[in-house]
Amino acid sequence: MPPTLDATFNLDFDSRLDDVMLQAVDEMASSSPMLASMGKYHLGWLDRNFDPVDASLLEKGKRIRPKIALLSCMAVSGKPEPALLIAAAIELLHNFTLIHDDIQDASPLRRHRETVWSIWGVGQAINAGDALFAASHRLLLSAANHGAPAETVLTLAAAFDQMTIDIVGGQVMDLQFEDGVPATVELYLQMIRRKTAAIVEFAAWAGAVAGGSTDTQATQFGQFGKSLGTGFQLRDDVLGVWGKSSETGKPEADDIRRKKQSLPIVLLRETATVAEQEALSGIFSQPLVTEPDIDAILMMLETRQVRARANNLVLEYHLRADQALERVGAVSGPEAIEALHALVAALSSRQH
Amino acid sequence: MPPTLDATFNLDFDSRLDDVMLQAVDEMASSSPMLASMGKYHLGWLDRNFDPVDASLLEKGKRIRPKIALLSCMAVSGKPEPALLIAAAIELLHNFTLIHDDIQDASPLRRHRETVWSIWGVGQAINAGDALFAASHRLLLSAANHGAPAETVLTLAAAFDQMTIDIVGGQVMDLQFEDGVPATVELYLQMIRRKTAAIVEFAAWAGAVAGGSTDTQATQFGQFGKSLGTGFQLRDDVLGVWGKSSETGKPEADDIRRKKQSLPIVLLRETATVAEQEALSGIFSQPLVTEPDIDAILMMLETRQVRARANNLVLEYHLRADQALERVGAVSGPEAIEALHALVAALSSRQH
Repeated sequence: MPPTLDATFNLDFDSRLDDVMLQAVDEMASSSPMLASMGKYHLGWLDRNFDPVDASLLEKGKRIRPKIALLSCMAVSGKPEPALLIAAAIELLHNFTLIHDDIQDASPLRRHRETVWSIWGVGQAINAGDALFAASHRLLLSAANHGAPAETVLTLAAAFDQMTIDIVGGQVMDLQFEDGVPATVELYLQMIRRKTAAIVEFAAWAGAVAGGSTDTQATQFGQFGKSLGTGFQLRDDVLGVWGKSSETGKPEADDIRRKKQSLPIVLLRETATVAEQEALSGIFSQPLVTEPDIDAILMMLETRQVRARANNLVLEYHLRADQALERVGAVSGPEAIEALHALVAALSSRQH
Repeated sequence: MPPTLDATFNLDFDSRLDDVMLQAVDEMASSSPMLASMGKYHLGWLDRNFDPVDASLLEKGKRIRPKIALLSCMAVSGKPEPALLIAAAIELLHNFTLIHDDIQDASPLRRHRETVWSIWGVGQAINAGDALFAASHRLLLSAANHGAPAETVLTLAAAFDQMTIDIVGGQVMDLQFEDGVPATVELYLQMIRRKTAAIVEFAAWAGAVAGGSTDTQATQFGQFGKSLGTGFQLRDDVLGVWGKSSETGKPEADDIRRKKQSLPIVLLRETATVAEQEALSGIFSQPLVTEPDIDAILMMLETRQVRARANNLVLEYHLRADQALERVGAVSGPEAIEALHALVAALSSRQH
């Protein structure tokens, strides 16, 4: 696991981020107390009865995206503060997409807790996501009231919207794959670049812009984020098939059981024989994937050397992320660049 | 029915609005062609096979919200153009909420056509709405590239987000009422002020701001929109119970059949006897409302003079809208103020 925000900044940054996010969600209460409470439940601050959760039990997620925005800003300007509101807005936006994803995937659990839709129903969960999206946007715009030039905020806000449309476009493709549209490696990479990498790209780019970077620098930070985000998802895909249950907290080969067309399966399809293709399609067209089916697919993955090919791709994207960081050149906060390299290394070899 | 945009402006405004909206939706295709196509289907330009719809058959809806923004701008500045992008953004935002509402209400039809979710499923319809929301936002921000001052656009965008959270908050209440939470007249008015009136209030206020109004004028335009939007929904509620099927295109007393806690029912609850309350609760707790049940409720509404009370409320809100317009004072476009008064009159007595 990557180090926490606090360990990285040697500052109370986790709680500063919490304060900003909490205030933005609390402000929704003037339109609907229920909206604010569902948002605070999803973000881990309240339990399902809307009572406060003990601080020691908070499930906040990894917060990789805001951390990247803060570190990119710090690299450029020597301090993370100019990106604080933007980092918080990114984390809220990410959580809006999670609330809607959980409906679309019919997921019962998120971070070991019941999902919003499974407690309050699909209709109210759609509302909770919609409102959190609007709240994230308003938080981003509020940077203009805290020292950011109006023109910069407008540029960031327009890119925030474009990135959101990219995320949703990736989700459209993901649902199409789940409905049986066959995923090639190229289409699969296109999907995760949108669904997962676009927000990481935005976080790095926007953090740099908030820190006052040149356009060229901001583009390099964006490239860094795009590669890291892609590598992050590919690593997730590898863990979804070969991760240890004791590390991931999920059953082994869980993605195969759930018939996900993730990296290992699309790589396998690329080089499988006709007989293997047919066996694979036969298994995935059944309502339930059995343990012998899983063993058969693991054997095919072994024969076609998919694990090594997948790991190579994971390494390649993390390498590209490091290279983009190196191309940034001289910065005011070299220790933040080092922290970003350390984040790449930690994510590249993570076990969960 | 109120006159069309073209009849009001004696200009090709309907098609200019179409052009701006179409371009904003088309731009989503770079993230996902399917997203753009679902958006264009919902807005009436494509059929369910994504083939173009013949111009003579277009179902565009009433477009009252953009019209109010354009007229408010014209009243203040003498011309509607400064509000064109904002008006188009408001209409796209409205359509995002309709796509999600149709999921939440399980509505099979919208403007005589199948709803997005009923063709492409709940998951993709959530995506279509989310993306249209982001596109509406980006369109609003683009006003800064067409002459609007950056500070003004930031103010409009933040209010746009607040208004969106209000709409969603109203929808939260509406779903709670449908789940059986009893609606009082006060709670019901609070709900429609958020769900229906907030966007009309925003349209009038934002149109005035885009036209360069004073703060005091903009506030009056906002009051006008809020009253008109509330009156609009209350008139809808009256038509939902007493509208003629030949005019509304819906079965008579449709809202009673659908067990909606709309204005007539909340007014009835306010003055019903205990026996009537129990009869009403008994009817609404059954799975299906029968024709004799409908007759019984219509009789109670008659006894308690609900129709007259409801019509008085409708008139009161339309009167408040007219009064707010009168308080605006001297303007550059008095003919636009007259057109807004004419819109109030047309909406106040509409039969469908």
